[in-house]
Amino acid sequence: MWHELLPVGRHTGSGGYRRFAWTPADGECRDWFREQAAARGLTYEADRNGNQWAWYGDPAAGNAVVTGSHLDSVPDGGAFDGPLGVVSAFAALDELIARGVRLSRPLGIVNFGDEEGARFGLACVGSRLTTGQLTAEQAHLLTDADGITLPRAMEAAGHDPDAIGADPGRLARIGAFVELHVEQGRALDLSGDPVGVASAIWPHGRWRFDFRGEANHAGTTRLTDRHDPMLPYAETVLAARREARDAGAVATFGKVAVEPGGVNAVPSLVRGWLDSRAPRQDTLDTVVGGVEKAARAHADEHGVRLDVVRESFTPVVEFDHALRDDIARLLGREHGDRGITVPVLGTGAGHDAGILAARIPTAMLFVRNPTGVSHSPAESATEDDCLAGVRALADVLEGLACP
Amino acid sequence: MWHELLPVGRHTGSGGYRRFAWTPADGECRDWFREQAAARGLTYEADRNGNQWAWYGDPAAGNAVVTGSHLDSVPDGGAFDGPLGVVSAFAALDELIARGVRLSRPLGIVNFGDEEGARFGLACVGSRLTTGQLTAEQAHLLTDADGITLPRAMEAAGHDPDAIGADPGRLARIGAFVELHVEQGRALDLSGDPVGVASAIWPHGRWRFDFRGEANHAGTTRLTDRHDPMLPYAETVLAARREARDAGAVATFGKVAVEPGGVNAVPSLVRGWLDSRAPRQDTLDTVVGGVEKAARAHADEHGVRLDVVRESFTPVVEFDHALRDDIARLLGREHGDRGITVPVLGTGAGHDAGILAARIPTAMLFVRNPTGVSHSPAESATEDDCLAGVRALADVLEGLACP
Repeated sequence: MWHELLPVGRHTGSGGYRRFAWTPADGECRDWFREQAAARGLTYEADRNGNQWAWYGDPAAGNAVVTGSHLDSVPDGGAFDGPLGVVSAFAALDELIARGVRLSRPLGIVNFGDEEGARFGLACVGSRLTTGQLTAEQAHLLTDADGITLPRAMEAAGHDPDAIGADPGRLARIGAFVELHVEQGRALDLSGDPVGVASAIWPHGRWRFDFRGEANHAGTTRLTDRHDPMLPYAETVLAARREARDAGAVATFGKVAVEPGGVNAVPSLVRGWLDSRAPRQDTLDTVVGGVEKAARAHADEHGVRLDVVRESFTPVVEFDHALRDDIARLLGREHGDRGITVPVLGTGAGHDAGILAARIPTAMLFVRNPTGVSHSPAESATEDDCLAGVRALADVLEGLACP
Repeated sequence: MWHELLPVGRHTGSGGYRRFAWTPADGECRDWFREQAAARGLTYEADRNGNQWAWYGDPAAGNAVVTGSHLDSVPDGGAFDGPLGVVSAFAALDELIARGVRLSRPLGIVNFGDEEGARFGLACVGSRLTTGQLTAEQAHLLTDADGITLPRAMEAAGHDPDAIGADPGRLARIGAFVELHVEQGRALDLSGDPVGVASAIWPHGRWRFDFRGEANHAGTTRLTDRHDPMLPYAETVLAARREARDAGAVATFGKVAVEPGGVNAVPSLVRGWLDSRAPRQDTLDTVVGGVEKAARAHADEHGVRLDVVRESFTPVVEFDHALRDDIARLLGREHGDRGITVPVLGTGAGHDAGILAARIPTAMLFVRNPTGVSHSPAESATEDDCLAGVRALADVLEGLACP
């Protein structure tokens, strides 16, 4: 099952994956999902928002237990981020059938569309549309780097863009959602555990810093006559690292755009995007406030104008405490005699589970990633840990669906 | 004459010019040149390398005096850089005819093709090909950002790309070349002079700094686990300013490329281009050596690999001393009684005159630019100063061609 999916959308140069929403690579992943559902005799549904569902039992019965993740990727992403949760969902169902358990609740497997937002710039489009956190009108305005709108991309992939929108009836049938995901840091590697449970998703925002100076000739303009926005930008990059380090948070400038962008031109504009996350809201405020203060001081020093725009913000997401305790108990019961603990950890990454958590009891399992690397081909998980993840997910599903 | 040329290739948004080699805007500028030649009954030639010539007198007589510049622009460049030298050339010829002078040497007006290198990345393609500093084979490999090669672009504009190459016969007929150009700094503004004479073009190079770290998730990767190349890049930008300031040179990072370039991704690669120039070679060596040393120290500190590649280098160009002294004498004689001095100044910018200086006696005149701004729509020159430039050029041409 894993090996059929591995080559899809893999870039031969980087070794990373380029599975962007509504592209042919995304379509191949969707075909794979439908085939997996058919091979198990599951009821297949593609919903109005581009999410795929495979049902064991009748979803109309309600109070369903759903598991799954996403199959799309960031640019040159790794093999596990997303697909591990979908593959593990099918494998956990196989395990439950092999165990001969009888489920008293319907079990659903889901592939949420466009989780990474790599093409249209907004993450979790499939789950946001379903919960109503993104409206059809807003989604219709999303545009990729080639100027192709989301509706045109959906149409080109054979999906009706006029059908998208909130889907409360579908959510009402779901009693719990559990997403398994490769860990995107080294907490489990450092604690020596193959599997962990999520406590919360850190508050998270993106801020655009526009430094506007004056374009000029790089060979003939005296340094004292320059208003070079690259200099306050560089100071701001260093300030972000200092502020994050001092606060126990993270802060990153991973994207920058320069105008006019000529080797021999002092830039007129340097636009940098700050991504920052922290365990608590007040910590995040302190970090971003400190970065902005430093940026303003250095911009003033160079006669450069600064505009800071918050482009997105997601407050802290606390996962359902009762469900989390149930899961810790289920995994503890199963693994206790083998001396395996189940650590509970926060995460700085957004997920469809974070979107659904606003509407239904939701939890996440993490599988150890020995490199701690994420959104890169160096992301990894051992086969033993992946199998431990499948067993843990099967245990959780069995515990929830056979009470 | 000036007003016919002003609207060509002007971008309505920025107010700057986008006259890139072998584009329709470039073609319109070329049409304008041909019309100016025809209107004066000059002999028109388009040479094998895409340069345009207009002759007053018979160039076959040899020992010609040539003046001119270029009509192409950087992205969103100003109105004067290049065109002022071509327009002034025609205007100076008109002035000489109005003065009723008889020239004993042929007078040529030239528009050199692709001076700025905005499209194919290499400056002074027309003059480099003519002098043999660029071979046809090398030129055929030049490619623009859309993957269009120079030969294809030339063909599309109706020029035979197989004809390009060194043109020693043409150079042999030229006894002196004088290029008039808007000043690209504030030296004349600070000294209070409308016109100056160039002494030399500073040595100049471009270095590519590739900082290679490790792509990672910006939300989940602990700061201590990161190898973020944006941090040593930022330190290097600041080091470049410090080194240049301390040495009386200039150093600029005006172009940067980031991979993967996602807001939520620690970069795997930050590639920054350093442009640096100094009055003397040893000063330039000190600056670039200092920047590279700082870059290596900061790259090591973050576990980031650094490769530095010198992409281009032009040693100091000393303009012909005898011709420069002739010009200073001619302008001093003409303007002395009005108390106008003729300052002699170095420049950090490359020019076709710098290319030709290797083969024929060459000189440059500069016209005051009160903003000092260059390669930007804010570049300027007053009408009075432009007319002073035309008179000075006419004086020089008369002095050289009517000895």
